[in-house]
Amino acid sequence: MDYKVADLGLADFGRTEIELAEHEMPGLMAMRERYGAAQPLKGARIAGSLHMTIQTAVLIETLVDLGADVRWATCNIFSTQDHAAAAVVVGRNGGTVENPSGVPVFAWKGETLAEYWDEAEKVFDFTDESGNSVGPNVLLDDGGDITMLVHLGVEFEKAGAVPAQDSTDNEEFKEVLRVLERSLANNPGRWTSIAAEIKGVTEETTTGVHRLYERFKEGSLLFPAINVNDSVTKSKFDNKYGCRHSLVDGINRATDVMIGGKVAVVCGYGDVGKGSAESLRGQGARVIVTEIDPICALQAAMDGYEVKRLESVVDKADIFVTTTGNFNIIRAEHFAQMKNQAIVGNIGHFDNEIDMAGLAKIPGIVKSEIKPQVHQWIFPDGKKIIVLSEGRLLNLGNATGHPSFVMSNSFTNQVLAQIEVFTKTEQYPVGVYVLPKHLDEEVARLHLDALGVELTELTQEQADYIGVEVSGPYKPEHYRY
Amino acid sequence: MDYKVADLGLADFGRTEIELAEHEMPGLMAMRERYGAAQPLKGARIAGSLHMTIQTAVLIETLVDLGADVRWATCNIFSTQDHAAAAVVVGRNGGTVENPSGVPVFAWKGETLAEYWDEAEKVFDFTDESGNSVGPNVLLDDGGDITMLVHLGVEFEKAGAVPAQDSTDNEEFKEVLRVLERSLANNPGRWTSIAAEIKGVTEETTTGVHRLYERFKEGSLLFPAINVNDSVTKSKFDNKYGCRHSLVDGINRATDVMIGGKVAVVCGYGDVGKGSAESLRGQGARVIVTEIDPICALQAAMDGYEVKRLESVVDKADIFVTTTGNFNIIRAEHFAQMKNQAIVGNIGHFDNEIDMAGLAKIPGIVKSEIKPQVHQWIFPDGKKIIVLSEGRLLNLGNATGHPSFVMSNSFTNQVLAQIEVFTKTEQYPVGVYVLPKHLDEEVARLHLDALGVELTELTQEQADYIGVEVSGPYKPEHYRY
Amino acid sequence: MDYKVADLGLADFGRTEIELAEHEMPGLMAMRERYGAAQPLKGARIAGSLHMTIQTAVLIETLVDLGADVRWATCNIFSTQDHAAAAVVVGRNGGTVENPSGVPVFAWKGETLAEYWDEAEKVFDFTDESGNSVGPNVLLDDGGDITMLVHLGVEFEKAGAVPAQDSTDNEEFKEVLRVLERSLANNPGRWTSIAAEIKGVTEETTTGVHRLYERFKEGSLLFPAINVNDSVTKSKFDNKYGCRHSLVDGINRATDVMIGGKVAVVCGYGDVGKGSAESLRGQGARVIVTEIDPICALQAAMDGYEVKRLESVVDKADIFVTTTGNFNIIRAEHFAQMKNQAIVGNIGHFDNEIDMAGLAKIPGIVKSEIKPQVHQWIFPDGKKIIVLSEGRLLNLGNATGHPSFVMSNSFTNQVLAQIEVFTKTEQYPVGVYVLPKHLDEEVARLHLDALGVELTELTQEQADYIGVEVSGPYKPEHYRY
Amino acid sequence: MDYKVADLGLADFGRTEIELAEHEMPGLMAMRERYGAAQPLKGARIAGSLHMTIQTAVLIETLVDLGADVRWATCNIFSTQDHAAAAVVVGRNGGTVENPSGVPVFAWKGETLAEYWDEAEKVFDFTDESGNSVGPNVLLDDGGDITMLVHLGVEFEKAGAVPAQDSTDNEEFKEVLRVLERSLANNPGRWTSIAAEIKGVTEETTTGVHRLYERFKEGSLLFPAINVNDSVTKSKFDNKYGCRHSLVDGINRATDVMIGGKVAVVCGYGDVGKGSAESLRGQGARVIVTEIDPICALQAAMDGYEVKRLESVVDKADIFVTTTGNFNIIRAEHFAQMKNQAIVGNIGHFDNEIDMAGLAKIPGIVKSEIKPQVHQWIFPDGKKIIVLSEGRLLNLGNATGHPSFVMSNSFTNQVLAQIEVFTKTEQYPVGVYVLPKHLDEEVARLHLDALGVELTELTQEQADYIGVEVSGPYKPEHYRY
Repeated sequence: MDYKVADLGLADFGRTEIELAEHEMPGLMAMRERYGAAQPLKGARIAGSLHMTIQTAVLIETLVDLGADVRWATCNIFSTQDHAAAAVVVGRNGGTVENPSGVPVFAWKGETLAEYWDEAEKVFDFTDESGNSVGPNVLLDDGGDITMLVHLGVEFEKAGAVPAQDSTDNEEFKEVLRVLERSLANNPGRWTSIAAEIKGVTEETTTGVHRLYERFKEGSLLFPAINVNDSVTKSKFDNKYGCRHSLVDGINRATDVMIGGKVAVVCGYGDVGKGSAESLRGQGARVIVTEIDPICALQAAMDGYEVKRLESVVDKADIFVTTTGNFNIIRAEHFAQMKNQAIVGNIGHFDNEIDMAGLAKIPGIVKSEIKPQVHQWIFPDGKKIIVLSEGRLLNLGNATGHPSFVMSNSFTNQVLAQIEVFTKTEQYPVGVYVLPKHLDEEVARLHLDALGVELTELTQEQADYIGVEVSGPYKPEHYRY
Repeated sequence: MDYKVADLGLADFGRTEIELAEHEMPGLMAMRERYGAAQPLKGARIAGSLHMTIQTAVLIETLVDLGADVRWATCNIFSTQDHAAAAVVVGRNGGTVENPSGVPVFAWKGETLAEYWDEAEKVFDFTDESGNSVGPNVLLDDGGDITMLVHLGVEFEKAGAVPAQDSTDNEEFKEVLRVLERSLANNPGRWTSIAAEIKGVTEETTTGVHRLYERFKEGSLLFPAINVNDSVTKSKFDNKYGCRHSLVDGINRATDVMIGGKVAVVCGYGDVGKGSAESLRGQGARVIVTEIDPICALQAAMDGYEVKRLESVVDKADIFVTTTGNFNIIRAEHFAQMKNQAIVGNIGHFDNEIDMAGLAKIPGIVKSEIKPQVHQWIFPDGKKIIVLSEGRLLNLGNATGHPSFVMSNSFTNQVLAQIEVFTKTEQYPVGVYVLPKHLDEEVARLHLDALGVELTELTQEQADYIGVEVSGPYKPEHYRY
Repeated sequence: MDYKVADLGLADFGRTEIELAEHEMPGLMAMRERYGAAQPLKGARIAGSLHMTIQTAVLIETLVDLGADVRWATCNIFSTQDHAAAAVVVGRNGGTVENPSGVPVFAWKGETLAEYWDEAEKVFDFTDESGNSVGPNVLLDDGGDITMLVHLGVEFEKAGAVPAQDSTDNEEFKEVLRVLERSLANNPGRWTSIAAEIKGVTEETTTGVHRLYERFKEGSLLFPAINVNDSVTKSKFDNKYGCRHSLVDGINRATDVMIGGKVAVVCGYGDVGKGSAESLRGQGARVIVTEIDPICALQAAMDGYEVKRLESVVDKADIFVTTTGNFNIIRAEHFAQMKNQAIVGNIGHFDNEIDMAGLAKIPGIVKSEIKPQVHQWIFPDGKKIIVLSEGRLLNLGNATGHPSFVMSNSFTNQVLAQIEVFTKTEQYPVGVYVLPKHLDEEVARLHLDALGVELTELTQEQADYIGVEVSGPYKPEHYRY
Repeated sequence: MDYKVADLGLADFGRTEIELAEHEMPGLMAMRERYGAAQPLKGARIAGSLHMTIQTAVLIETLVDLGADVRWATCNIFSTQDHAAAAVVVGRNGGTVENPSGVPVFAWKGETLAEYWDEAEKVFDFTDESGNSVGPNVLLDDGGDITMLVHLGVEFEKAGAVPAQDSTDNEEFKEVLRVLERSLANNPGRWTSIAAEIKGVTEETTTGVHRLYERFKEGSLLFPAINVNDSVTKSKFDNKYGCRHSLVDGINRATDVMIGGKVAVVCGYGDVGKGSAESLRGQGARVIVTEIDPICALQAAMDGYEVKRLESVVDKADIFVTTTGNFNIIRAEHFAQMKNQAIVGNIGHFDNEIDMAGLAKIPGIVKSEIKPQVHQWIFPDGKKIIVLSEGRLLNLGNATGHPSFVMSNSFTNQVLAQIEVFTKTEQYPVGVYVLPKHLDEEVARLHLDALGVELTELTQEQADYIGVEVSGPYKPEHYRY
């Protein structure tokens, strides 16, 4: 079996943690129970790119249990849990370190950018039952990197050439170009034939979804996409409650600094920002919010937070967290004004929310590692700023990401979305879709028992009165929860 | 001037309160400043049916300042603030009790159902500049009562007859039939000609909106409707933050019972339920939620609330609040199991969330007034249950409703919606619409200064990066806030 | 029967409210049940001076049920609930408006300062069983006014003269001098003989207790005092949870202004300040605390509040609340800098926390009543400041004070303290005492059932392990809760 | 230099962390600045027994900077941070791994009980300037172990014999007896002479303080003790805010289980319980409290928590935390009823809050390590219970203990207490003392700047009005904060 992970010896520990996580992921367990016999993903070749954590391991093995052939890479160079990767590779049912029987994984904690894109490419190398090289027929993406690889591949193949690496300043994009150049050299029609086979992609996160809508708007989208991010049970749970959990967890593990009594700035008050602000307030911090959207700004004010421009408070705060999904939020001029030992981290999707490049260019600044994923940036005058996970996702880099229970919601949506796009292909012409509301409600329903929730049932009269079915869906499409 | 209110002598007090409220309603004040000269509502004859409170007075006078001719009734028999009604009638600019110069209002606190529908009918009696009787050309509705009057009027006129009053058990609907029967007797084409003139209705609340969508679905909607309720700055502010304010205010004024330490059941965890639960928790109550929708139930659990069926907790709780928009939520069998001196109230739209009729039919039960809008229902065994506002909206019946600031958001949406539907008639064929997002954001923006909020501005690069204009709108349509 | 109240006709309404309150005052009901037969207060003549509210009515009637003869005045000119006073005077057991049979009360809402002190004096005029004029033998005081009357009376009688009224600038103290001068003229030994009969005083509040410790330190205390305020079940419940309830209640009833999103300054972070800050935060306000004590300031910071000097924030806040027990906290120079329509109120004990006199002296300022207990102070430039209850206790002046349940804790302490000081006189030489901890725990215990609390019982082994009795007390004296 | 730690190679990492912690410990830094020159601890030989963490390293080096000679052991076998121990041994000012120049430390993570007591004994082996063996002249203790060693040593020396190890069932006490038996064999007067030199002990925690009061009551206390635990800036900060921080931190690091939506039982609602409940609620858990003290139970109810007996909820909860300071709180019969994968941990002082011995004796139960300090206990039917840190302090065993800022408060009290007891020996006859309130306030004051707090200053008039000095102390001794 081909794979590339840090150390298969971690598989036993990974397996123990996977078993613990399964208890916390009732939605995925229900998927196995409900669909295990029917094998709805039989024939699916799923190329996945999503943080290779313990929770993702439960997702991967659920996809396998539903019949799929799966290959996996991570979507973030720091977020891989090496024991999770190892356990997935070794597999269940008699797989061993010597003779692994699980799913090919291409991920380890701390990849370089070059390695990241080399490994990403490998999730496209399936072998069919006859032993032929084939591509995937479904993608499962987080942030859109492998979706981009296919789209750029097709675009460059059509153009007959890949732009030169020095056509871009972006270090990461240079690697993308390098990988595609190599690919075109080897096989100038590869991505075009891969794209033709893909029934669709299910995309996990805001940033990736945004890219998909852009492509669809400009007419360049190559296959249908299901926007998992905007299922209520994803966006309102993973983004909000997941970050409530993992933000303070990440800060604590990274710094051990008391959050209570501190002034914390949360940039952005979308779902991630809402969960982040609650997380910090729950620990006794005084939270200040920055926002560009007047509606979210008003929500923050009504929730009791001070709402200011970053410039107005940058010299008074102790902790800074970006949650915007935008870029260049915290810049060199902000770092220059921060207090000594201010802590700066990002829980939005990309590392460019914090201008790390700008920070590195401050004359005389020195970067010093305190421990992995925690660095001091020391100014010439001795002032130190602590930056978490080099500006990448701190909850994944400094802690273990969202907890299993909340990921069970997101990932049950993923499984349902994979089934939709793979089995009902004709219902999904090229476009971007959210899952129908009754599936969204079903995901929620599968997680209630574990919390001891008793759900009230509508009487037929009550259902008629509000014009819904007794079994739902209960709300109009535009309902905001 | 024709009007019917409790006591014009209250006008001075009402005017003082209106002036205080204006300070808290920056959105409406901005409307006056921005549009006062242009008079976009010149020629509009607005028939309004919405709680006749101080805040509504500021709305009415804003509509007048924008050029409209206005007539007003309430949408709830208990919610009128008599001093507000008086002040609106007396008016500004030299109006006096002897010689009122304001807007005709037909509302007083404590109307009977018969009076309510008699007065509702009067908002349709406009006089044009030549002194002719005409109908309104725009409706502004809350709950859909005057919209229903028009629709039923047209329907019965088409049928040539009104059903007999004893065709219904519903006490209130008997009154509707009575009013329409009288109308048809006088003028069998009246509603049909009124309907023909109406450019549209702007509807304030969930329940009314629901009725509009139903009508539109079944093809019976007669004119376009703007769903003000589902503007984010309405549904997420008025419903949630307004109820957070006014729920405990209503309970406190009604009962003076300490909420801290008590067990409170909130039926429903929509926006109203979310605000209600937060209101009670903020006072130290332990809140239990009931829900039918698994998504909202899961939200309640993640927010730390116990989620149970009413039957499981009805004998252990001290306070019960319905917020569902559905009916028959708290029924006679529930009352029978409650603790002595349990407090029961409704903050959803209609009084049938609590089955008051069923309560009254319990053998041997006696109703005793503690003070206006607060009653004890005494069981034969001496057990007493305290019911607020006879099951109608307790925040309006027992307190003063939502506070001005939150209503300024809702009502600024109303003003913008009135302008849309009146001035851009051709853009709104029959259907149900929400306001475009940029207007929603504008409403929010008009309320930030008052709270000392500093809004961050996108750079052009950042706007490009996320694919929006620097000036917004900032979010996709499906965004849930 | 002698009494002086607003209107006995309110007695029926008062009685209904008293019965409702009894349900919320399980501690006092338990006192009646436990001690009703034994009549431990038989022979006690209790002179009381404490806000004449519904809750106090339940206290008074509990004292009567335990055998006491009681006379009552209020301790605050605005706090009397007239229906409560009326009901207490009319009494139970067949008392009527024509022929009242209850307890003599001398209090009505809105007394002048002169009336206040005239009425305060009347609680000393008992008649014994033989019909002779006698004084009280126990005092129950709130703030120390009647205790002061006795002490000053004795002092002036010893001196043979009362200082001239113009020896003081303090308007209120002039009235004290007037009353005592009249008394000395009538009976130059009256207070001396009254004092000789008094077995002790039980004092309700911080301010009164402070005065008692001062007197004791300087050697002038004339009889023993029980400091009820510092029972845990008083100071940590009434002060904190009572104010959490009644602060927002008072602001809401007075102003109807939305608290959510506003900036509120709470001056002082003692128990009253802690409850006040929580009250406002629970409604979504952003709370800023001012403090002089570094320990309380650090607590406020750790609880997530901004801590600033008033001067730094006075021009940015919307709501100001004083809770300090000190004086001259908000002064004319502060008012001058406040925003238009800022709301200012006091929930500490005395009205001098806010310098009302200084406010009134601002050149050109005009005071205008919005409604009773709510005034606008209009500056020459048109700026308006809203002052609640003329700077007196806003929770009593604008709402109904602390709710019954929390007062049941305080007042059960009062009853136990009255029994202690009346029946165990010899155990209390002149001094200031707190109730023994087992009584404090008993008060708490009597309130648990009503909240559905299950108390865990220590095993004998566990009790031995921590060195306490199974039945308590459980904590060392210095424990802070 | 003698020492015994895990690995001196960790010293560099420890030093980096110590420097970060110094920023968060402004109180200790202020001590160094204020007293560094005066050297008030010159001549002090301090034997310390307190968790050997990074924060303790800052304390130790502060004591050294004030002139003391120090030897250190831990007070808990799991709590040592090996890099902290290493850094303290290597020291500053040119110490190296090869040639350490710091303070002798005898502690590593994961000692056996036998090792623990062997190392504890070594803190008594000082060498004076002439090179003679001497004992300490001050103790700094946490939990009272080294204080007990001295007292039992003296007692057994007086008796001339140590009881046989099999006279006790307690595994740990067997080790105490072993160590003392060895000591008496070597030097039968050692402890008696050590005790004679000791000027006093400063004790950190509730449990240790409780033992001291017991000894003082029974007349066996050998030297004065300062109760640091009951300084407000310790008990109300370390216990409450420290646990608010470190409880969720410990649970997160140990289990990665989502706390939001879960049911958590907190046994005990003292300061530790209050902080723990807030910690869990801040993450969205529904918290149920158990209590034996009716006052604390009532506080919990008023704070909105359900209060139940453990038996009533043990089968419904997901997380259990003991905070009582008592023993046998969670017993075998409770474990038997818990849900699968319930999480059980202790944040009180001793590991006997959870009956680990009873758990181990359940027939057929199997203990399996998930990772260090996290074990599954697998019942014969397959049910698994997760126990953290083997029942010892989970915040130290599973996370890094209280954060620096809160420990700065506690440890600044320790430094002040060491100075008191060492320099003012004559003012402290044998007894148990708390620090005077002005020192408590000073500790708070030293921590305000770091949080941006502006402290208000009393005017002289205001100070006079409430009868305090402008500079404090501000509250009576009995004040509870």
